[in-house]
Amino acid sequence: MRTFLDCYPCFVRQALEAARHLGADEIKQKVVLDQVLELLKHIDMSATPPQIGDRVHRLVRRELRADDPYREYKQNATREALELLPRLRTILEQAEDHLETAVRLSIAGNVIDAGVKPSYQLWPTVQRVLTQDFAVQDLDLLRRGLEQASSVLFLADNAGETVFDGLLIETLKRPVVYALKAGPILNDATAEDARMAGLHEVAELIDTGSDAPGTILEQCSNRFRDAFAQAPLVIAKGQANYETLSEADRPVFFLLQAKCPVIARDLDVPVGSIVIRRGGSVEVEGAY
Amino acid sequence: MRTFLDCYPCFVRQALEAARHLGADEIKQKVVLDQVLELLKHIDMSATPPQIGDRVHRLVRRELRADDPYREYKQNATREALELLPRLRTILEQAEDHLETAVRLSIAGNVIDAGVKPSYQLWPTVQRVLTQDFAVQDLDLLRRGLEQASSVLFLADNAGETVFDGLLIETLKRPVVYALKAGPILNDATAEDARMAGLHEVAELIDTGSDAPGTILEQCSNRFRDAFAQAPLVIAKGQANYETLSEADRPVFFLLQAKCPVIARDLDVPVGSIVIRRGGSVEVEGAY
Repeated sequence: MRTFLDCYPCFVRQALEAARHLGADEIKQKVVLDQVLELLKHIDMSATPPQIGDRVHRLVRRELRADDPYREYKQNATREALELLPRLRTILEQAEDHLETAVRLSIAGNVIDAGVKPSYQLWPTVQRVLTQDFAVQDLDLLRRGLEQASSVLFLADNAGETVFDGLLIETLKRPVVYALKAGPILNDATAEDARMAGLHEVAELIDTGSDAPGTILEQCSNRFRDAFAQAPLVIAKGQANYETLSEADRPVFFLLQAKCPVIARDLDVPVGSIVIRRGGSVEVEGAY
Repeated sequence: MRTFLDCYPCFVRQALEAARHLGADEIKQKVVLDQVLELLKHIDMSATPPQIGDRVHRLVRRELRADDPYREYKQNATREALELLPRLRTILEQAEDHLETAVRLSIAGNVIDAGVKPSYQLWPTVQRVLTQDFAVQDLDLLRRGLEQASSVLFLADNAGETVFDGLLIETLKRPVVYALKAGPILNDATAEDARMAGLHEVAELIDTGSDAPGTILEQCSNRFRDAFAQAPLVIAKGQANYETLSEADRPVFFLLQAKCPVIARDLDVPVGSIVIRRGGSVEVEGAY
């Protein structure tokens, strides 16, 4: 999905918030922002928004000499999600349809997204998403795909959301490789963040080889690209993975909340929708 | 109130929306936006946000050779408000406290604000504001001020909101001068817009001599400045009037919905609050 002019205000806001997470004073914030404004004048609109976001956040980190502006944000999000885990587990155990409920919980966790809206309410979101109608509902395709798939490549999104993904991974009952960012970007989960959430106990953790948001294949490692090309089924969480992989011709299932108007328009759903969308045209191990 | 870096994303978004209202294609939108980005690199942060907004919107109008990007938006807003007028009038007639209800209706109309959020729901907002607690509640000061004030200078805000202001003006039962923008800026009401709303039947219409948002006194005409300096009591609608006059030492009553986080922080109220706030320290004709 390409970048739209609607994305500009968001890039500016993200840069400002990242600078503030690093404790930059207003003068330093303005220095950073002025450079972001200059960068935006020269961007390639055919790039995906995460490609631009990558450059924006790289600029902030370089200018403010920081490696992880969202470290504390990510730790707090993970802690809050872990506190909810016993209640989430009870919900899942009592569910009639374990896969559907686990998918819903994983999508509920996608409310954690500093790129769109830094503040969120976790438990009310869980309650909403458990009963909300899907705007795109490829659950049956996912179910059939999973029946045929001997393993799953799971593309992680944000720290804290990882806890919710862990429950879905347990429910899948097959080997799962959980792919994380190779370095800090926004509040995206790295392997370190995922370990804090306990994901190493339910999946093999790898990284994409890239610290860009989403999954920009050309920036990923050969190892990851091979894993992506060979995975019988891919679950991709969140907006940035959709933005970067919506045109990839692999059996990718996008699980997300459509929080941004531009992405919602691309998906042809209202803002606030919950989505399970089958991307690509390659069939899962020749089935369905 | 000065400009904050938080205002940058809003300026960019406003410029984009204005360009789209004019039917500019994406290439022209980008040309305009690039110029706005350059402008933002050189702004004086001690200026008020409406002073920057004035420059941004002037740039859009100049670059796209248009005098009133929001003409249709304003006409639609006025039409929608006029359709509601009979119901608003019934609410007001049945109210126990006519002044309070008329103030609430006038504040409800302040939801019309293309600068903050282009879409709005008028009737649900009326219902909300009729019973919502005030976050700042200087109604008694306003009531006492009005008892002493032989006339009122009323600073208008947006087209459509004018219809709601008309009911408050009728309730004041004293001569009111209704001050409008001297030319189009965002969806702010001009005299032409106010006449469409019927305001010439309840007030004397003047303009501020300026087509900047809010009331930037140094850009206003001598005639308006005199009216402002001599008015026994001023009612100022909306955020931009607060941003530009919050430090003016005149008996100004700001009536508004705090829709923007920066302004809400300056007012020390939550976003979404409704506010009647007495500004300045000059007393109303020596009373209270």
